[in-house]
Formats: sequence, structure tokens, C-alpha cells
Amino acid sequence: MIVDISKKVLIVGLGLLGGSYARGLKRYGFHISAVTKEQSSIDYALKEGFIDEGTTMPDKKIIGEADLIIFALYPHIFVEWIEQNQKLFKSGAIITDVTGVKRSIVYKIQDMLRPDVEFIPAHPMAGREVSGVENSTDKMFAGANYIVTPTDKNTDDAISTCMELGRLLGFENVTTLSPEQHDEMIGFLSQLTHCIAITLMTCNDTENMEKFTGDSFRDLTRIARINDLMWSELFISNKDILLKQMDSFMDKFNHLKKMLEQEDVDGMREMMRHSTKRRALFDKK
Amino acid sequence: MIVDISKKVLIVGLGLLGGSYARGLKRYGFHISAVTKEQSSIDYALKEGFIDEGTTMPDKKIIGEADLIIFALYPHIFVEWIEQNQKLFKSGAIITDVTGVKRSIVYKIQDMLRPDVEFIPAHPMAGREVSGVENSTDKMFAGANYIVTPTDKNTDDAISTCMELGRLLGFENVTTLSPEQHDEMIGFLSQLTHCIAITLMTCNDTENMEKFTGDSFRDLTRIARINDLMWSELFISNKDILLKQMDSFMDKFNHLKKMLEQEDVDGMREMMRHSTKRRALFDKK
Repeated sequence: MIVDISKKVLIVGLGLLGGSYARGLKRYGFHISAVTKEQSSIDYALKEGFIDEGTTMPDKKIIGEADLIIFALYPHIFVEWIEQNQKLFKSGAIITDVTGVKRSIVYKIQDMLRPDVEFIPAHPMAGREVSGVENSTDKMFAGANYIVTPTDKNTDDAISTCMELGRLLGFENVTTLSPEQHDEMIGFLSQLTHCIAITLMTCNDTENMEKFTGDSFRDLTRIARINDLMWSELFISNKDILLKQMDSFMDKFNHLKKMLEQEDVDGMREMMRHSTKRRALFDKK
Repeated sequence: MIVDISKKVLIVGLGLLGGSYARGLKRYGFHISAVTKEQSSIDYALKEGFIDEGTTMPDKKIIGEADLIIFALYPHIFVEWIEQNQKLFKSGAIITDVTGVKRSIVYKIQDMLRPDVEFIPAHPMAGREVSGVENSTDKMFAGANYIVTPTDKNTDDAISTCMELGRLLGFENVTTLSPEQHDEMIGFLSQLTHCIAITLMTCNDTENMEKFTGDSFRDLTRIARINDLMWSELFISNKDILLKQMDSFMDKFNHLKKMLEQEDVDGMREMMRHSTKRRALFDKK
């Protein structure tokens, strides 16, 4: 094990994900500290026993002792935090994150970071429709994907450490992608998907529809319950790719519409068979 | 109970839904017969004990004895079947169906039907991504909606009988709508939803994406595994309404795209809050 339990772990941002990381790592006995906005989050985590200490202010001692620092903040707050507090890092510390977009964050942070500290970015692909440390759970990572997105600036050691972290947390698949590949993938699999769900949820306000719905509509709109602050920031951070994905979705949707207009049954059936065949790849193993 | 168990029930089309109806009604002790295409479906249902007799050909005795006949066929086959075999119905029989579109079927069948037989249409809003009688289950209806779509030609008695049938099968909500209201609702809640799912599933064929997916994409494409024969027929049967729903989805999607292009964060956040608020209505009770 590369991440040995003598290492001190600091979590910055003790919300749903930060709290879930803390719970997941506490199982192994790591010393875990937290810096977060609300004292109530710290009190809760201390009471539940998944952190050892916490502070609402950037604390010199807590930050300076951490060997591994995990940032679970909104993208723009993450960048600001590093700017203001990186002077407190221990020399040789490794920092990682949970940010859902990579290109706009990774290079900015690696460029401004002290040379004796390494930032190895990662994206744990897990979430819930609720937020806050009270909803954190170490079950969240089972069966999920964890993507490390290293750049030329990263060392093999840090990459291995970060992948080890994903495995310790219980992720099913731990892989690497470049920040560019990551954003391309996420623009389609996650962001376009959220755009579709919120559009479907808001394009028809007819009353009483909930009385007649089946599970299909519920499935397609589960993620329409959305954190507006976070997702609007994620969309804008990946704007070029997301716009491209929205266009390619719309082209295909228009094609289907044209086939329906022309009652092109063969064309529609071919699209449906393509869909059925491709969906089989995405079944959970 | 209006539907007493001395009544003989006939199911025409012993597939996923027909089989599930048979299982659900057998619990009460009804005599259940079946007319269906494949002998193997009959053999399976007899072995499992949820039908009493079955035939692959329209059998004079079986059809002539039935008090309640449930049609679980594709729309166009349903119409043809009635044309060819309605002479065999018992006088006073009530017939119902499971068809997912109503306007194009209901009036056609009521207009051609013998005056001593009544057709009371219904749509059980339940399904699975698999088909065939071997996948039938009487658990399928728990928590689901059952919509009866009567016309001026229907009697109060037949409407009550059909609603009772829905309750006996275990549906959570049994309601009525006109065929027009039904098709409007279903065009949005079910058909548009399937159009979106198959478009998302086929608009980007990048390889290896399944290795990086989260649950959002899986949720939005669960129904992308689709029976192409049935759904292309359903789409075309409700073409005018579905095209209108596709347009209104596309308008909203384009609006979101424009907000993203202009980085209109306030606008996007407002849409997301609208989405979140409206989604709460659709939570399963």
C-alpha cells in the first residue's frame, strides 16, 4: 500500500463528497482532519467519529501537518483557496480533488502551485440528489468509476497514490484519462444528460401529470433535482465541449423527428435496434 | 366486487403483459383461458398454473364462453383480430385492452364492434425492458398507474368493471381520462421520454464510454433498450401529439443552449430551480 495509514489526511470542504471520503478512509484508521465553512459540519463529523479534528478557518497547524489533502469544493472556490492558502502546505504534500471538470481547473492550479507540492487531479463519479455531510456515506463508491486525470507535470508516484486512494475508497473501476479526454467524456455522459433531464422537467408544466406518470419519466428526471449553483458552474467550465454535445444530440433528435414525420418505420426501427444493442454495453456488471 | 370470480376471463396475447394479467387474476381463482400465437407460451402458462386452458387458433368454445376478454396485442393486430373474430364473442361480453395509444384504436374498434358487446379501453402503465410470458410477474403493477379511457359509447357498468379490474391487479392509482387527454399525456410522459432515451443512446458512438459512465447516463437510457416493432407503431399512432411534444422539448433545449452560449448563469440557475421544484411532485409516494 502506497498510502500508508501513518499519513495524515486533510479534507477541505466537508459536504456530501468530502464527508463520504472521510468515512471511507476512517475505516482504515487514517488520521483525518477537515477545514470547512460550517462549524455544524465539523461537530457532526466529530460526533460520528469520522474526523479527528476540524476548523472553519485555514488553520496553520492542521494544514501544515497534512500529507494528503483532498479538495471537495466548488471549482472557483477551489482555485481561490489554493491562491490564498498554499503557503501553509507541508513540503512534499500531495493534493487531489473531486472536481467534475478538469481542463479549466487542472492547469490553472498546477501552474500556480508551489514546486514542492504536487496536485494530482481526480474525479470520483459518484453523487446523490441530496447534499451536505449528513447525507455522506461510504457506500456511495461501490460499483462506481474513479478517474485520475494526470498531466505531464505529475510524477508516477503521485499518480499511483491517487489511484490507490480510489481503490481504498471502494471504487469499482479506477482509470486514468487526460484532462481533455475526461472533459469530452463527462460533457456527454454527465453534463448533456443533466441538460436533457432539466429540459424534459421544465418543457411542459401541465398540471396533475404526476398522477399519470410511469417509471420511464421518473428515471429520465431523477437528476432533474439539481444543485443550481454547482451545475451552472460546471456547465460553463466545459462550455465548448458541452455545446458540441448538445448539437450532436439535437441533430439526432431532429433526424428521429423527420423519420416520424415521414412515417419512416424502417428508419425508426433501425435506430431503435442500434439503441438497444448499444445500451447493452452500459449494463452494470 | 363487480368482477365476481364466476366470470370467465380470456386473455388474447399471452406475452409480458398478458401473462402478468393472468398471474394477477389467478390469485383470486378466476377461470382463465388464453389465445396466443405460440404453443410454447401456453405450455409455460399451464405448467406455471396461471391459465386453465389455451389455444393458438381462435377457438369457438374458448372465445364464446368468455365474459371478460383482455387484449394484449400490438395495436394493428388488435384491430385485425376484432374484425376477423368478433362473431365468436358471447353476447354481453366486455372487452378491454392494454394498448398504449388510444385515439387511433378506441373509436375504430367501438365503431366496428357488435352492438351486444362493449369495449372499454384501458392503459396499464407498467412494463419491463424484457418481453415474453416467461418474464411476466404479478408484482409489476404495484405502485403503478392504470388509466381507463371511456368514450360516450361506454356504460357506467363497464367503466366500473374496468376500474375494478385495475384495482384487482394491484395498481396503485386507477383513474379515467378521455382518449384525447390520455394520448396528450402519454405523448409527453412516455413517448417523448423514449424518443429522448434512444437519441441519447445513439448520438455518440465513442468507444469504451461504458468504462467511465455514472448512474445518470444509465438512468436516462434504461428505456433505450426498446421493442422496435411496438414502439415505432406507437409513435406513428400518436404522431401529431408526439411531434408537438418533440418541438416543445427542442424549444426549451435550445433556450438552455442559448443561455449557456451567453453564460447567462442567472437564467440557467432559474431553470434548474424550476426543474428541482417540479421534480419533487413526481417522487413516488
